[in-house]
Amino acid sequence: MSKPLRIAVAGLGTVGAGTLRLLQDNAGTIAARAGRALQVTAVSARDRGRDRGLDLSGVQWFDDPVALARDAEADVVVELIGGSEDPAKLLVETALRAGRHVVTANKALLAHHGTALAGLAEGVGRTLGYEAAVAGGIPIIKGLREGLAGNRISRVYGVLNGTCNYILTQMAGELEGAGNPQAGQNFETVLAEAQRLGYAEADPSFDVDGIDTAHKLAILTAVAFGCEVDFGSVYVEGIRNVSALDVAYADELGYRIKLLGLAQLVDGAVEQRVHPCMVAKELPIASVAGVFNAVVADGDFVDTVMYEGRGAGSGPTASAVVADLIDIARGTILPVFGIPAANLARLPSLPMGEHLCPYYLRLLVRDEPGVIADVAAALRDESISMESMIQRGRAEGEGEAVPVIIMTHETQEAQIQRALARIAELEAVVEQPRLIRIVDL
Amino acid sequence: MSKPLRIAVAGLGTVGAGTLRLLQDNAGTIAARAGRALQVTAVSARDRGRDRGLDLSGVQWFDDPVALARDAEADVVVELIGGSEDPAKLLVETALRAGRHVVTANKALLAHHGTALAGLAEGVGRTLGYEAAVAGGIPIIKGLREGLAGNRISRVYGVLNGTCNYILTQMAGELEGAGNPQAGQNFETVLAEAQRLGYAEADPSFDVDGIDTAHKLAILTAVAFGCEVDFGSVYVEGIRNVSALDVAYADELGYRIKLLGLAQLVDGAVEQRVHPCMVAKELPIASVAGVFNAVVADGDFVDTVMYEGRGAGSGPTASAVVADLIDIARGTILPVFGIPAANLARLPSLPMGEHLCPYYLRLLVRDEPGVIADVAAALRDESISMESMIQRGRAEGEGEAVPVIIMTHETQEAQIQRALARIAELEAVVEQPRLIRIVDL
Repeated sequence: MSKPLRIAVAGLGTVGAGTLRLLQDNAGTIAARAGRALQVTAVSARDRGRDRGLDLSGVQWFDDPVALARDAEADVVVELIGGSEDPAKLLVETALRAGRHVVTANKALLAHHGTALAGLAEGVGRTLGYEAAVAGGIPIIKGLREGLAGNRISRVYGVLNGTCNYILTQMAGELEGAGNPQAGQNFETVLAEAQRLGYAEADPSFDVDGIDTAHKLAILTAVAFGCEVDFGSVYVEGIRNVSALDVAYADELGYRIKLLGLAQLVDGAVEQRVHPCMVAKELPIASVAGVFNAVVADGDFVDTVMYEGRGAGSGPTASAVVADLIDIARGTILPVFGIPAANLARLPSLPMGEHLCPYYLRLLVRDEPGVIADVAAALRDESISMESMIQRGRAEGEGEAVPVIIMTHETQEAQIQRALARIAELEAVVEQPRLIRIVDL
Repeated sequence: MSKPLRIAVAGLGTVGAGTLRLLQDNAGTIAARAGRALQVTAVSARDRGRDRGLDLSGVQWFDDPVALARDAEADVVVELIGGSEDPAKLLVETALRAGRHVVTANKALLAHHGTALAGLAEGVGRTLGYEAAVAGGIPIIKGLREGLAGNRISRVYGVLNGTCNYILTQMAGELEGAGNPQAGQNFETVLAEAQRLGYAEADPSFDVDGIDTAHKLAILTAVAFGCEVDFGSVYVEGIRNVSALDVAYADELGYRIKLLGLAQLVDGAVEQRVHPCMVAKELPIASVAGVFNAVVADGDFVDTVMYEGRGAGSGPTASAVVADLIDIARGTILPVFGIPAANLARLPSLPMGEHLCPYYLRLLVRDEPGVIADVAAALRDESISMESMIQRGRAEGEGEAVPVIIMTHETQEAQIQRALARIAELEAVVEQPRLIRIVDL
């Protein structure tokens, strides 16, 4: 058996501690599979005194993670600090320049600097593993980059953020059936409960505003299509505006609402978007519940493949980190995004305004004569064709507000946005009109 | 770029032709990913004259596949002949002994001779790829052997045969909803339709009797648990006895019937079984419809991961074959079952008689006094506890037969089999009693 793979870990939060625990608990199995032992030789974290329930005897301690990247006696540096800029970025660059492989769970870093870091890693003949950065424990990077490597991928999409999926699932009351007290509750209420349970951060904006999903999507896009990482071109819209009413109407119309990250090739251009979607209930992706993640890839020969599993948490993320470490120990060193960074295509991005799909529109209008005619005229003037409309019951008093739901036929985003801007200015429309895109998967 | 990887393909049926087409259609993408071209240099098939729509100019032709394995100018031999014995076996052995890598889609070969062939391959420093042998296009071998390599896997199971899943889905009428004319039809009728559509072979026994699923399961077991392939210990029961009545009662009781292959570690012993299962409708595996396959793995850190995709067909199987070829071109050479063949454990197998689960029992009894008492006594004498019983309506004439459905609490297989043998001998029981195991996933 070869000599041990020496590993330095920067960051001992949930994932870092989970990684050390996994390497310790399954040391024998891992050594048998990797052909050599995986040995943690150095760690770095903010507070040396804190009890993490880990045996760190014989492990070199660094207060400064960048010093660890430079000086630790290690073949690989595992970056679990997070954030798209320094110290994480400097740490990764320092480790690569010192000739060490890097494994990271940092989606923000990869989304912002993936192409450059891949070029750096390949230039020094080292690898940059990031299985843990996308969809937690699901080995989707390996799945795309190796398992489906024979295919031209035309589309990749998924439920990539467990917090959002937990909130949407709870709002729909799917998790515990009709008896679920949260079914029918609004976003804010369910978010507060998710925060209490530890499924959402105190500041939830990174998750609920779709940014985390967009980071992951930008990485998936590069791997799937062999193009440069282009986070700036991702259209991003979160779930804050999804209301209990939307969830109820979706159910009635045969849909579930999911926050999807979706990337596809359209005539040589890349479309990347993150937004709430109405997806037909019968689709497998519609059944992905709670904190689970799922990724679907469409390949020209394999057709459709779906991966589902836990997208976050100490154990699943550690599983992905260690899979990368075992690859390195086994000597599997591949181009970071599947083809050499220098050859990644710079593809044009499709403007969101050109996106075509049917739309669900929700208006809150005062119940008075002529309103529907004005709304219909605004749609007609943008050549938007209605598929159906639901206006049910009457307001308590004349002039009070009632919801109106409109489903359109396929329409261009720019047109629907112009129509909605005009509708929003109607005096009888008492709330910003909302839209949810209906996706055909 | 390095020199091309030279490939010899034995067998130009559906999968062989698909593989050549994939290598041709996606040659540029594949070369970019593999870092070198993948070039077919030799082929072998039974009928040289047949038009397969493939350009074979410049490709060496062999009438004898074993001669191809020995003499072709190739780095890799792709075996797509099938069957657990010669010529497939001899061809693979010959290719390995000649120092060539082998890629195969042959589950029967691996199930019967996997351990020995792995030893042979590793002994000569070559690899034996078999991603295409299990679950078609789903990269599950890579998923288990690499993606989840940090985990101790406690259980792996799946829908592994598209023919059976198509038949069971059609019987349940899930595919096309209530209007499906095949819903409520019996096994034989749906099988005939599946044969007409090309989803089932003229001789369907390999599929519907569970043997194909058992082959795949035996392979998954070895990869998941790091043990020798032990096809002989797989308990196998097919779907011929699943009736329209069972499908209807399953639906009423909240279940779907799926043919699963399931392997788990129980106190250091391996349980491998293939049989129709009642699975709760809400489970993701219950929604795997038609010819799709799915595999679920439970790991100690990753928790549960599920893969779903097409389990057969020219394109998906070719996708898996080519993924193995790209791995070889990239230089990724791993032990065949994840750890060296010499270190694969020889684990004891758990006898089916010791298996514990709740059971669904279907009896057809003459509608006369005392029958239920006799049935209940047979169960009681084996200490089998009933959870519920359904006997609905009365027979047209006295003494005619009516179905009786019994759900038991958790029971040992040996006990239920003894009780059923006794029940079968009751004079009022007019048909062999049937059982379906209820699995808790």
